[in-house]
Amino acid sequence: MLNLQSSTPKEWGELAVKHIDEILLDHAHCEKKAASTALSLIFRYPEVTQMIRPLSEVAREELEHFELVLSHIERRGGQFERQSPSPYAGRLMKIVRSEEPERLLDVLLCCAAIEARSCERMTVLADALDDGPLKDLYTGLLACEARHHMLYVDIAQEIWSKEVVRDRLIEVMKHEADTLFRASSVPRMHN
Amino acid sequence: MLNLQSSTPKEWGELAVKHIDEILLDHAHCEKKAASTALSLIFRYPEVTQMIRPLSEVAREELEHFELVLSHIERRGGQFERQSPSPYAGRLMKIVRSEEPERLLDVLLCCAAIEARSCERMTVLADALDDGPLKDLYTGLLACEARHHMLYVDIAQEIWSKEVVRDRLIEVMKHEADTLFRASSVPRMHN
Repeated sequence: MLNLQSSTPKEWGELAVKHIDEILLDHAHCEKKAASTALSLIFRYPEVTQMIRPLSEVAREELEHFELVLSHIERRGGQFERQSPSPYAGRLMKIVRSEEPERLLDVLLCCAAIEARSCERMTVLADALDDGPLKDLYTGLLACEARHHMLYVDIAQEIWSKEVVRDRLIEVMKHEADTLFRASSVPRMHN
Repeated sequence: MLNLQSSTPKEWGELAVKHIDEILLDHAHCEKKAASTALSLIFRYPEVTQMIRPLSEVAREELEHFELVLSHIERRGGQFERQSPSPYAGRLMKIVRSEEPERLLDVLLCCAAIEARSCERMTVLADALDDGPLKDLYTGLLACEARHHMLYVDIAQEIWSKEVVRDRLIEVMKHEADTLFRASSVPRMHN
């Protein structure tokens, strides 16, 4: 259902648990970035009427998750602060074609790819975490990530044919798997 | 309470009612822009811990209002689309100093100024509208705008002394009144 072309090894979960505060901070930044990306699509494509409201709803939900992760960071005695991001998203977006309407299709499918990988990573993380508030956090959030993955694919399918979306999605997801394979070993959601 | 240095004439309300569909579309764009500005402050100032959560909550609320205004546009048979913005916000922001920490103070107080003027304009608009869903919309929203005005002032007062904030707020509000006086006559929330 997530259309992923590679699986995260269990070892990533073990590393993430060891560096859970760094992962939580990265996760907060990811939620904020996801909200910003959804909002930027509304700014760039106001005429694509059918995607305006769903994107606004997604942006709101990402901000809710941002605030939820902030609570966990604060509960653990930390605080929100700057952090060097994973090169993953920037490298993933290199597949986006510069001409429209291909650009929009590619951005939507890259967003879908990030949500799918987030869902998979949260599943691995929830499995690796001991019982407690963080296991509950990730068990609760992973379903939303899966829903957002489908939502981005659905938006694309309202604008392009199912065949066009499916074929490009496979290309984007292969590129996503390759991007992740070449990511660094710094503990991040998408490293 | 709104700290405004000028009052909107009743005539603005009459013009706005005559061009209510244009005003609604502008209003939708304003809510979207307000969400984007709040989010951009989180991106730029992650280390100003005390304002991160309030700004995220404001951004979510602005997006809720954006969706609410969208519903009214659609109910009236219109749709969200591009529109030339009022020069108001761009001109208002010219008062922002380029050096930190003055820049942050000025941006927060410009946001406060925009919220205050929005509240005042919505009050005038609600008065000018006949009973019906749009009168209810603006009567419901104007209290939120007043609350957001105070929230931006409160954030500033958590970082700077009350005296510093009060003195600069008076300067910003005088500039705001002057900016509005020189705005064009195209029907917009802040023209």
